[in-house]
Formats: sequence, C-alpha cells, structure tokens
Amino acid sequence: MNESRNVVVEAPIGVFDSGVGGLTVARELFEILPYEDVVYFGDVGRTPYGGRSKDIIIQFTQQDMAFMLEQKVKFVICACNSASSVALEEIKNDYDIDMIGVIEPGAAAAVKKTRNNRIGVIGTQATVSSNAYAKIIHDVNPDIKVFSLACPLFVPLAEEGYVEKKATYMIARDYLKTMQDVEVDTLILGCTHYPLLKHVISIVMGDEVTLIDSGEETARVALRKLADDNLLNPASSQRPAREGERRFYVSDVPEKFSQVATRFLGKPVDNITRVDISKY
Amino acid sequence: MNESRNVVVEAPIGVFDSGVGGLTVARELFEILPYEDVVYFGDVGRTPYGGRSKDIIIQFTQQDMAFMLEQKVKFVICACNSASSVALEEIKNDYDIDMIGVIEPGAAAAVKKTRNNRIGVIGTQATVSSNAYAKIIHDVNPDIKVFSLACPLFVPLAEEGYVEKKATYMIARDYLKTMQDVEVDTLILGCTHYPLLKHVISIVMGDEVTLIDSGEETARVALRKLADDNLLNPASSQRPAREGERRFYVSDVPEKFSQVATRFLGKPVDNITRVDISKY
Repeated sequence: MNESRNVVVEAPIGVFDSGVGGLTVARELFEILPYEDVVYFGDVGRTPYGGRSKDIIIQFTQQDMAFMLEQKVKFVICACNSASSVALEEIKNDYDIDMIGVIEPGAAAAVKKTRNNRIGVIGTQATVSSNAYAKIIHDVNPDIKVFSLACPLFVPLAEEGYVEKKATYMIARDYLKTMQDVEVDTLILGCTHYPLLKHVISIVMGDEVTLIDSGEETARVALRKLADDNLLNPASSQRPAREGERRFYVSDVPEKFSQVATRFLGKPVDNITRVDISKY
Repeated sequence: MNESRNVVVEAPIGVFDSGVGGLTVARELFEILPYEDVVYFGDVGRTPYGGRSKDIIIQFTQQDMAFMLEQKVKFVICACNSASSVALEEIKNDYDIDMIGVIEPGAAAAVKKTRNNRIGVIGTQATVSSNAYAKIIHDVNPDIKVFSLACPLFVPLAEEGYVEKKATYMIARDYLKTMQDVEVDTLILGCTHYPLLKHVISIVMGDEVTLIDSGEETARVALRKLADDNLLNPASSQRPAREGERRFYVSDVPEKFSQVATRFLGKPVDNITRVDISKY
C-alpha cells in the first residue's frame, strides 16, 4: 500500500499529542527504535484536549496533522487518547500517509490479558464518551464486558506532580470504586498522563488487576508496522549506527515543556522550537 | 476622556474570560446593572490560561479583545485573573476603549480590609508569577506585606464540582498552610474559579480571615466607572425599564458552557453562539 506513496524511508517518524503526555509514547519509541529520527509536537498552548468537544478536537488534530506533514514525516503516531478516540477515524483517510493512534494497541493488549472477560477503561471525558476502546474490543470479542470511566482530575494531579499524596489516593479510590465493584481484571490507562499515576492506581486496584499502558503498546505496534511496510530507516542496520535525531516542537514557549521532557526522558532536552499552531 | 472617543452609551458592556470562571463577574454585573446589555465571551476552547506563558496569554487576550471590539462594546471587563495579571498592562493602550481587569478592584478591597497589613493572594501560576496584585497593593501602601501562592489544582477541582469532598479539604489545607503560617488576615481569591471553593477555603483559613472575591469587586468598580464616564445606558433611568440583553459567545460547542452557565446564573442560558477565536 505504501508503494503508491511517495514515502521516504529515511524520513522521521512523527508523534503528536495535546501536550506533554505523549512523551510517554516517545520515550518508548526512542527505546525500541533508537536509530529512527523522530519529530514530536506537543500542543501545550491548547492542552488539555480531553474536556473539549469532538468538534474542536477534530479541528485541533487536523492542525497538528498539517504540521506533521510539513515536517515530511513517513508515519504518524497520534499519542493523545482523546484525539485518537474522537478524531482519528474521521480524518485518517484524508492523508496520504499511515497514522496510528493509541486506542487499538491498548485495546488489543487488554483483550490478550483478560481472563475473566471484564475490561475497564479510564480516560478523559472525550475518550470515554467516544466509546472508542469498547468498539474495538467488541470487534475482536463481543463477549467481553467493557466498563468505561472518566477520571478528569487525574490529568491535573499528574501534571502538578501531586502523586504520592494522601488526597490523590482518596480521589483514586473514589473514582476507581466502580471499577472494583464490577470486578475488571484488566484496566486500560486510556490517557497518556495516567502512567504517571500508575503506582497509585495499582495500589488502589490491587495486584490481581493488570494495568495496560496504551503508550507502551503503541510504540510496539509502530515498530511492527514500520517493519511490515519496509519503512524502517536503513541506517538502523548499518554499523556504526547513528543515533536517531529527535526534534521537539510546542505551541507555547518551550521552558516548561523542556523541564517536563527532561524529567520524562531522563536526559536534557533542549532542541525545542515554538510553533504557532493556529496558523496551520 | 471619553468625549474624544466614539463611544455609544447604548452599546453593550463586554466581559471576557478564559472560560466559564468569568461568569462569577457577569452574575454580579447582571445584579447591579440589570438594564445594561452585556456580551460575554468565554474562551472555553483554549481554557485554562493560568498555566500558560505570558507570551501566549497576551496573544489569546489580544484575540479576545479583537472579538470584543467587533461586538462594538462600550467598555470591557477582562474577568480572567491570569489575563488581567500578565496581559492587561501590555495591551490596554492599544485600544481606543476603556478596559478594566480584576486585579485592581481585588487589591483595593483587600487594602481596605486588612488590619494587620498582611495580605495573601492565591491564584494560578501566571497570576502569581506576574506579582500583579503585590505591585498594585504596594503602590497604595508599601508597608503591606503580600504573600502569593499558586494553587493550580483548585481550578480543576472547582470545574469538576469536586467541592465538598474530603480530598479537596486535604489539598486546600496542604496549599493554604503557608498562608496560615504567615498570618494573613485577608486573602484575595485571585482566580475567578476560586469563589466556587469559597466555603472550603473559608473553613481551612478560619473565620478571622476575610476572603476577597475579585469578581464581585470588579463589577462594583465597573458600575462606578461607567457612571463617572457618563456611559450608563439611558434605558436604565427610563420606566418601564427594559431588562438588559445578554449574549454569550464561546470558542467551543455551547453545550457544556450552557450547563455551567445555567448553574452559575440560576436560570437557563440558551443564546450561546460559537466563535472561531483563532481567526481573530
């Protein structure tokens, strides 16, 4: 399918997100595809997407994609659960390039893991309202029961680093009680911020519940897809191999993003450029 | 000063905010200026402003103002503390129309209230970093000690209606401990969302601390200013008086705003129009 397209295998992989959360996907990608160039765009000037309408999330996602295409990427990962849930299906056929979101990889991993056929999904209001995870899970196995729950305070708690606090455990217990009541054995962290609260969520849900990090799964699916489509950068098989170049773009000033990215990625990130995304 | 301007006294008053918070100002305005027409714009598609950079808050505020001018308003209230703190001084001379923010009214009320000359200010990161309240308070009385604190989780807690919860009290006690330690007798609620948490903040701070609601104060200052400048709508002195017309505009779909506005204003709000603010 890519033969008909003018895709350059040396081109970078594009990753975009409503803000910093997608760095959890990027980190995984850097790990398993170290020789690929990656362009990351974080829409920090308009974050978060999760409480906004389908309409505006589609508009923002189209602008994010326009920027990705300008960067001449060979493949795009939409790392934002809200955008993946409500915009991806609507817009993906408008582009002459492959793009994947975080929903299918997370859903597929959950279907493999569940033993009692009861899967929980936690995410933003947009993700939960879209029912995107449930639709994909039911395509694979209509007998699986899917329970979805919006946990809107998890994003600000994670962003503010308000993690190992008693109040955060209380809010998590409050939100997750219904998930415990319906006895899911697998819980999809359907928002890229939630892995930052993984420890809290795991303690509240208990050891017997498997947590699925959609971001991790997505990076693995991207690797397989690039390999299947012969889109891996040939530099990866040459020795000495050159480490991939990573470029970061954001829609507000880079300082705050730089701090968070450095913390997320475990090393200094300074090649961050500001973009006026409203012009796209 | 308004004689040289082409200001129409029958024109509406403009109120804009980063989202729904400014409705606390609008509600007060409807109360004390029932015969004035009011145009409200809430930038719900890009809310919140408080964690963003000065740069982008200025850009958003300029777009909000461009929309206000298109509505041919006679006077503008910037109801957002973050925009008032970081953008107002920078841009207000660019417009041939009077505009006030929420900082000066809140600061003036606090100066009047304090007995021990120790005032606290709580707000978003942008408001606190700008030091706007302290600057104005010190212009009036340099001997007053001002203590400022960002409480970023208060906005999502208020927006999610997560108010009378134990976790919210814990977070408030956590944040406000430093305010108690420095023994302020007056605390400015320097964010239009915070009045929704007034009960919680009041219980944590204790009866002896006066809470200042900048929104309420701002509506009163607007009334005085319009009267001083002979800008009150003559309809207000005619009988039978016609109730002012209220028009609402938002930068995302109106449904969610409509619910919140109806709750805030105590009656159904349905004349809400969507605006693509990125075009301004």
